[in-house]
Amino acid sequence: MTTLALESSKFLCAWPCHDARLPWEACPMDQRLSLITLAVADVEASRRFYLAGLGWAAEIHVPGEVLMIRTGQHLLLSLWDAREFEAEVGPIAAGPGLAPITLAHNVGSPGEVDQILATARDVGADPVQDAVRREWGGFSGYFADPDGYRWEIAHAPGQIERLVVPPAR
Amino acid sequence: MTTLALESSKFLCAWPCHDARLPWEACPMDQRLSLITLAVADVEASRRFYLAGLGWAAEIHVPGEVLMIRTGQHLLLSLWDAREFEAEVGPIAAGPGLAPITLAHNVGSPGEVDQILATARDVGADPVQDAVRREWGGFSGYFADPDGYRWEIAHAPGQIERLVVPPAR
Repeated sequence: MTTLALESSKFLCAWPCHDARLPWEACPMDQRLSLITLAVADVEASRRFYLAGLGWAAEIHVPGEVLMIRTGQHLLLSLWDAREFEAEVGPIAAGPGLAPITLAHNVGSPGEVDQILATARDVGADPVQDAVRREWGGFSGYFADPDGYRWEIAHAPGQIERLVVPPAR
Repeated sequence: MTTLALESSKFLCAWPCHDARLPWEACPMDQRLSLITLAVADVEASRRFYLAGLGWAAEIHVPGEVLMIRTGQHLLLSLWDAREFEAEVGPIAAGPGLAPITLAHNVGSPGEVDQILATARDVGADPVQDAVRREWGGFSGYFADPDGYRWEIAHAPGQIERLVVPPAR
């Protein structure tokens, strides 16, 4: 009887940490991130940096409102006009200082780290913090996008590299 | 001669927006996000919420310092002690208001949205903003993690659903 009930359920828990035979009604929440949204002051400035500068491709672009870019399997980076963000989500913390987040782009060698930071500088990223050896055993530096969001370009050999750097490279 | 040079290159551009025959030295930067890092006040509070509460599994956990969770293929969510974050990245904007980012978890139906928001409330998320119909055609609500980071639980039918909700569900 249980088997019949499960077979009739359209959705099943999809993530390995959950029992895949559970119907979705019994799943707490798959550990999946679908979109990361960043509030931006000027969507067109973001477009110039990410598309014209880094050579990335837009998946969805509503000029002046939102720009979405595929940054992985089943993953979008969304750059959303800050006024629209605040109207839906709430007021953003103002004042000096950084956003409390970073985005990392991991690669397979220290040489690639230096190369990408140089590319970012060439297309106007400011500031760019040159890569250094880190106490956790890797090599990384940062660049800022037009809104100051920090991208860390990292070579993190070992477990993290095996998890996040595509093996097909 | 060009072909020989390319064959001798260890890494090639891996993303469809780039010419896959380019050696990595000529690639600007693949459009890949490897980690999203959130500065948190108390890594153990994050652990209780994400692992004990939502039932997620840790990939890497250094108590009091960092907790990393797989949230997609080649993707990690990293919850990093805010003091260590500031020492490496820089001072975080203080004062009232939200971080200028949201994380979205997209699902295949409005019913799943309501179910997950109820689960989040059950495990202590505060505040939880019930889901409503959105002008962009979907249905979504938000919950806050222990540091106030907003997760949007969304049903976004159409192009976004096809891109970010795994078809195997």
